[in-house]
Amino acid sequence: MTAIGIDVGGTKCLGVALDDTGAVVAEVREPTPSAPELVWLLARMWGDLGGNAPLGVGLPGLITPAGVVRASPNLRGARDIAVGPGLREMLGAAVYVDNDATCAALAEWRVGAARGSRDALMVTLGTGIGGGIVMGGRLQRGSHGFAGEIGHMMVERGGLECVCGRRGCWERYASGSALRTLSGGRSGEEVFASFLAGDESSAAVVSEWAGWIATGLASLTNICDPEVIVLGGGTVDSVGPVMEEVREKFSRALYSPEHRTHPRLETAVLGARAGAIGAAMLTEPGIGLP
Amino acid sequence: MTAIGIDVGGTKCLGVALDDTGAVVAEVREPTPSAPELVWLLARMWGDLGGNAPLGVGLPGLITPAGVVRASPNLRGARDIAVGPGLREMLGAAVYVDNDATCAALAEWRVGAARGSRDALMVTLGTGIGGGIVMGGRLQRGSHGFAGEIGHMMVERGGLECVCGRRGCWERYASGSALRTLSGGRSGEEVFASFLAGDESSAAVVSEWAGWIATGLASLTNICDPEVIVLGGGTVDSVGPVMEEVREKFSRALYSPEHRTHPRLETAVLGARAGAIGAAMLTEPGIGLP
Repeated sequence: MTAIGIDVGGTKCLGVALDDTGAVVAEVREPTPSAPELVWLLARMWGDLGGNAPLGVGLPGLITPAGVVRASPNLRGARDIAVGPGLREMLGAAVYVDNDATCAALAEWRVGAARGSRDALMVTLGTGIGGGIVMGGRLQRGSHGFAGEIGHMMVERGGLECVCGRRGCWERYASGSALRTLSGGRSGEEVFASFLAGDESSAAVVSEWAGWIATGLASLTNICDPEVIVLGGGTVDSVGPVMEEVREKFSRALYSPEHRTHPRLETAVLGARAGAIGAAMLTEPGIGLP
Repeated sequence: MTAIGIDVGGTKCLGVALDDTGAVVAEVREPTPSAPELVWLLARMWGDLGGNAPLGVGLPGLITPAGVVRASPNLRGARDIAVGPGLREMLGAAVYVDNDATCAALAEWRVGAARGSRDALMVTLGTGIGGGIVMGGRLQRGSHGFAGEIGHMMVERGGLECVCGRRGCWERYASGSALRTLSGGRSGEEVFASFLAGDESSAAVVSEWAGWIATGLASLTNICDPEVIVLGGGTVDSVGPVMEEVREKFSRALYSPEHRTHPRLETAVLGARAGAIGAAMLTEPGIGLP
């Protein structure tokens, strides 16, 4: 075993241990605790996975290069949690901390759907929308480690209120939880079940959702021009039945679609483990920040 | 003299010759001709600037790495103009062609307002809005050379119609020409003159415009997390009187503003010459694409 990675989600934490071929050789799951207990839980999970190896951790929200969670609306509003410094002190091991979608991007780029591309975008659809950016053959974190908050791209003036406190953020229209809003309060599972059973009003909701996903992906493509966009996250399986509709609307929403090469739209191949595997990959030389 | 750069705009072409210190030693201007004559004019301007040196050209629109203008709504709808290949054949000199905002970004990053930053964003406000992206210490063109079309980020569902054929693009609300739309048909100069003379309705238009600029810059910061954003382009002088309002609205529109370092918002220091100087810089080894 050469590396341990833990993906901290809003409700659960998934940890994996990788051997020197990159294969997952152990896995543990725990419910996500409240912020004060988070560092203790991560230390215990590291031990349960064998310990004695460098640790990478992925978390939602704004993470500084030193591994401090500055703000995380989807992690019960955690603020200024020194995950990296705390774990380094407790474990005496190398510890790398990064944004969860950045971790997923790393894994899909190294061994998944974006393998071999110089410019790729990872889009995680779940409670919110996260993003990871590869440009020029490198994982990009921006100047302060905060790049990739693509869910907070504004897509409608004075639009729906977001957990971040602003209005009209893309994730209020295109995330998994947006289905509840777009359907007037029904759960995403319910909307999809009745859509698949042939219900027309549910089909209209799903179609609007697909349109919002497509529109946002087109804006991001106009900005970043990736070779491939990888859709992942907890809700990505729901996209399956409307993937062709997303592809078609995406192509039409691009700037000057008839004069450009379009990015490939792919679904993540590492599934729910992408974030944890990517977190473990942060421990490779030259990938993770101190 | 070591390099020649020409910036092709919607109405005029500006050419400069740089000496080996990077200083501008000659300058020529010509009206922008129709597409079939463009390559001839560029060859003549190269000669008028002394010739006998590598040439860089910046153009608006989608430019392939080989230097073909695939589409350019702001260049009289030019399509598939082989500017790079044509000039290489005519001049027998090295020729580099890139997007005009990418050229401006290069110049401001190397010797202007973004000097020394690893992550920077150039935003050119004019008839439309162009963008140039520096991430991870490199100029980024995306996978097909089309990165930076930030003016076509969608900011309002079903919004104003854009020259690109879609609706709700940012440049319809925040470019120089957007002032005409926001004011119900008055020219930008007129709106600004009466705003500065104290007219309240003009002040409201200018304030709305400042808000749209700020909102778009905040979305781009959420995505790219630059250290500095440089505002340039033909309309940037108009931003001057409302720059503080843009700064203030930008700060509030950012994701989690109280927990992050904000990018600096600067105005371009190279003025109208940024594009031409950056075009000349494309000729430096390792900067321009073949």
